[in-house]
Amino acid sequence: MRLLSSLYLPLKQPFIRKRFPCFFHSLSLSSLFMAPAFEDNNSETLPSSFSSGSDDGVLHKSKVTVVGSGNWGSVASKLIASNTLRLSSFHDEVRMWVFEETLPSGEKLTDVINRTNENVKYLPGIKLGKNVVADPDLENAVKDANMLVFVTPHQFMEGICKRLVGKVNGDVEAISLIKGMEVKREGPCMISTLISEQLGVSCCVLMGANIANEIAVEKFSEATVGYRDNREIAEKWVQLFSTPYFMVTAVQDVEGVELCGTLKNVVAIAAGFVDGLEMGNNTKAAIMRIGLREMRAFSKLLFSSVKDSTFFESCGVADLITTCCKQAHCCLLLLVQFCFDNDFFYFCGSGRKKQKSCRGFC
Amino acid sequence: MRLLSSLYLPLKQPFIRKRFPCFFHSLSLSSLFMAPAFEDNNSETLPSSFSSGSDDGVLHKSKVTVVGSGNWGSVASKLIASNTLRLSSFHDEVRMWVFEETLPSGEKLTDVINRTNENVKYLPGIKLGKNVVADPDLENAVKDANMLVFVTPHQFMEGICKRLVGKVNGDVEAISLIKGMEVKREGPCMISTLISEQLGVSCCVLMGANIANEIAVEKFSEATVGYRDNREIAEKWVQLFSTPYFMVTAVQDVEGVELCGTLKNVVAIAAGFVDGLEMGNNTKAAIMRIGLREMRAFSKLLFSSVKDSTFFESCGVADLITTCCKQAHCCLLLLVQFCFDNDFFYFCGSGRKKQKSCRGFC
Repeated sequence: MRLLSSLYLPLKQPFIRKRFPCFFHSLSLSSLFMAPAFEDNNSETLPSSFSSGSDDGVLHKSKVTVVGSGNWGSVASKLIASNTLRLSSFHDEVRMWVFEETLPSGEKLTDVINRTNENVKYLPGIKLGKNVVADPDLENAVKDANMLVFVTPHQFMEGICKRLVGKVNGDVEAISLIKGMEVKREGPCMISTLISEQLGVSCCVLMGANIANEIAVEKFSEATVGYRDNREIAEKWVQLFSTPYFMVTAVQDVEGVELCGTLKNVVAIAAGFVDGLEMGNNTKAAIMRIGLREMRAFSKLLFSSVKDSTFFESCGVADLITTCCKQAHCCLLLLVQFCFDNDFFYFCGSGRKKQKSCRGFC
Repeated sequence: MRLLSSLYLPLKQPFIRKRFPCFFHSLSLSSLFMAPAFEDNNSETLPSSFSSGSDDGVLHKSKVTVVGSGNWGSVASKLIASNTLRLSSFHDEVRMWVFEETLPSGEKLTDVINRTNENVKYLPGIKLGKNVVADPDLENAVKDANMLVFVTPHQFMEGICKRLVGKVNGDVEAISLIKGMEVKREGPCMISTLISEQLGVSCCVLMGANIANEIAVEKFSEATVGYRDNREIAEKWVQLFSTPYFMVTAVQDVEGVELCGTLKNVVAIAAGFVDGLEMGNNTKAAIMRIGLREMRAFSKLLFSSVKDSTFFESCGVADLITTCCKQAHCCLLLLVQFCFDNDFFYFCGSGRKKQKSCRGFC
């Protein structure tokens, strides 16, 4: 309290107010979120650019296809669709590839999405935008697109890429929203690399503290786009995703951003144990901090280009916080299930195999 | 899950196991905590040194006094007392200055502490160690000490320092566990600077994700010692505080460490609003991330020597997590009370002054 009141006098200069919105706008959160984010002088981040008007002088309109239609894929389509309508550099229509399912009513999922404008199975109650068109045919969905957004479970990506070889335009740019990696005999392979190598396209990534259902109801969130070298493309992805409630920043560190989104789940498992064992808040904060440091060191071991500053972005510390604080229990349950399924759940007790039940953790 | 299992093969080399305990020991947290922490090659941190044996060859034994006996002061005394008994470089006795109070029973607080070995008012149920001696006389408590630990509410420090001028030994080393700062007409003054300037001694700081009651019951925690230039003194403070359940790391950035402990409370107020307004997990993670970045930028504006790496230590990201996740509501209530007390609580509604009640936030 003393700090807030006492700092007031020396800090009321406008330039400091502008640079530290958090310290001045803690009574007005909406102002904070809309204020320009502070950037280091030597930062290479591109700030969120939610442009309110048209972008004239566009010769070539980009056409976007979202490959995936789960919870996060549907929310991504909603974000993108609101921007393609608004920005003249994009075709209005957003095509969304849907893995076709027959609903209990007997209807096809794509038919229901296209009739109701809602993914009734994976994001019920949220209108996606009338310009979102669900398409059950993968090859048809991508054939005219020059911006591909991949947002499927990671284990399906290799198969999807194989189906798309030779089927995408030569000028396609891709972005992966997929958290996870393929680990093969020859070593780990990032999903963005898999897409790049299989399809011969460049591929950015988008990661962050993004619980999909919260973004769906337009609660303020942030995300990080990781790009390799083309700042213009990165800026285009930032434009495509940014809304007043979804603030996107781009950093030139594709591997760093992608590894953040992948490795934080391992830390969340440890955090889940801390919760389950009631080890307390200090311990949980310690394991999250040690975990963040290990994520950074591990990422640098895999890719020496990874930057420290990436771990201060939404994809780093913020995603770790949401995952460990709200989803750690879920991660732990998945681990327990995995251990049961793989028949090596021996760690509880003195080597005695536990019964096949997760109830102790629920 | 795929990550954990698939990474196993390429990562089973012992040197990687050693460097990434979190990834291997998530099924065995105790192993993680006791494993040597990974340090960057170019890091200047001193790792925790919980030495198990004697430290022979000591010519001069240090005598420790703890100035303060609240919740955190009592826990600090307990930590220190366990080490002074164990290490031959310290006198066994730890003197603890207690602001004398008369308990409802009519007894003096110091008498009860010295009889029961327990601070029945501020840390009931926890034995401090028989070598902790409560002393109500400040000048007597410090007169033989050459290591002073300051752990009082920050607003009392100026008065305490004035009373101690000329009363402390010439070879005294000090450390401040006090979170907060004095802001005067001429600008902000760190508590460690206040101690250094008033008493003519060098002063380190110790901050971290340290909920006192959790450390009191020996739940694993971490802390950071910030020092200016003398690594040996820093190492001595690390020795004095480290236990198997309290892992202390030293970094050469006294202002950075101290500002972390101070500024995180401002971020926690914003986090408290996010909780109160039910803005969701993404928003809370975003405000914590933006807050951490602003803490860093603000600290560097005040002291250009502040290091980025300090914000990855326990005093930085970990303390922010405990404060925002478990204590944000408390910080917010304090702010609300402060606003009422200072008659400027106009932010709710359209400028209309609210009734003097905090119930809406409770």
